[in-house]
Amino acid sequence: MENDFIFVGQKPIMSYVLAVLTHVNSGHDHVFIKARGAMISKAVDISQIIKRKFSKDLKLGNVEVGTEELTSEDNKKRNVSFISIELKR
Amino acid sequence: MENDFIFVGQKPIMSYVLAVLTHVNSGHDHVFIKARGAMISKAVDISQIIKRKFSKDLKLGNVEVGTEELTSEDNKKRNVSFISIELKR
Repeated sequence: MENDFIFVGQKPIMSYVLAVLTHVNSGHDHVFIKARGAMISKAVDISQIIKRKFSKDLKLGNVEVGTEELTSEDNKKRNVSFISIELKR
Repeated sequence: MENDFIFVGQKPIMSYVLAVLTHVNSGHDHVFIKARGAMISKAVDISQIIKRKFSKDLKLGNVEVGTEELTSEDNKKRNVSFISIELKR
């Protein structure tokens, strides 16, 4: 389950598109694209690029938004929004 | 139904939080926070701030992501990702 997550960060958007496609093409039924904060918009773009251009047989599954508590380097806790977008066969 | 949408743009985040709260406090059962492109992350933040700090009786409803086709000023069509986050009593 944990291995079905692709975490979106600072890399170019096509890196994540490729990571998702590699994941599902290696025998997994579904994948979760997960992102926090400003990367949330990028996660939605990734899901849409995959659906429109690369893999029309992948369907959008559950889309979840919520808040996670992160501890920063100075030991302060802060709340960060996240999104998790499921793509499945 | 159309009137249940709050569209997220360039205003400060608390403007939209206030708009959502005003909407539900004026007798509406639910509201959709909608945003496109880079504003998507902001829409998620808005939904989380409302849930955590302002209105714990509002529940997260359906979260939808997708693509809309926009026509820009030079008449070119381009695809933009969107999110729609439902909050309901």
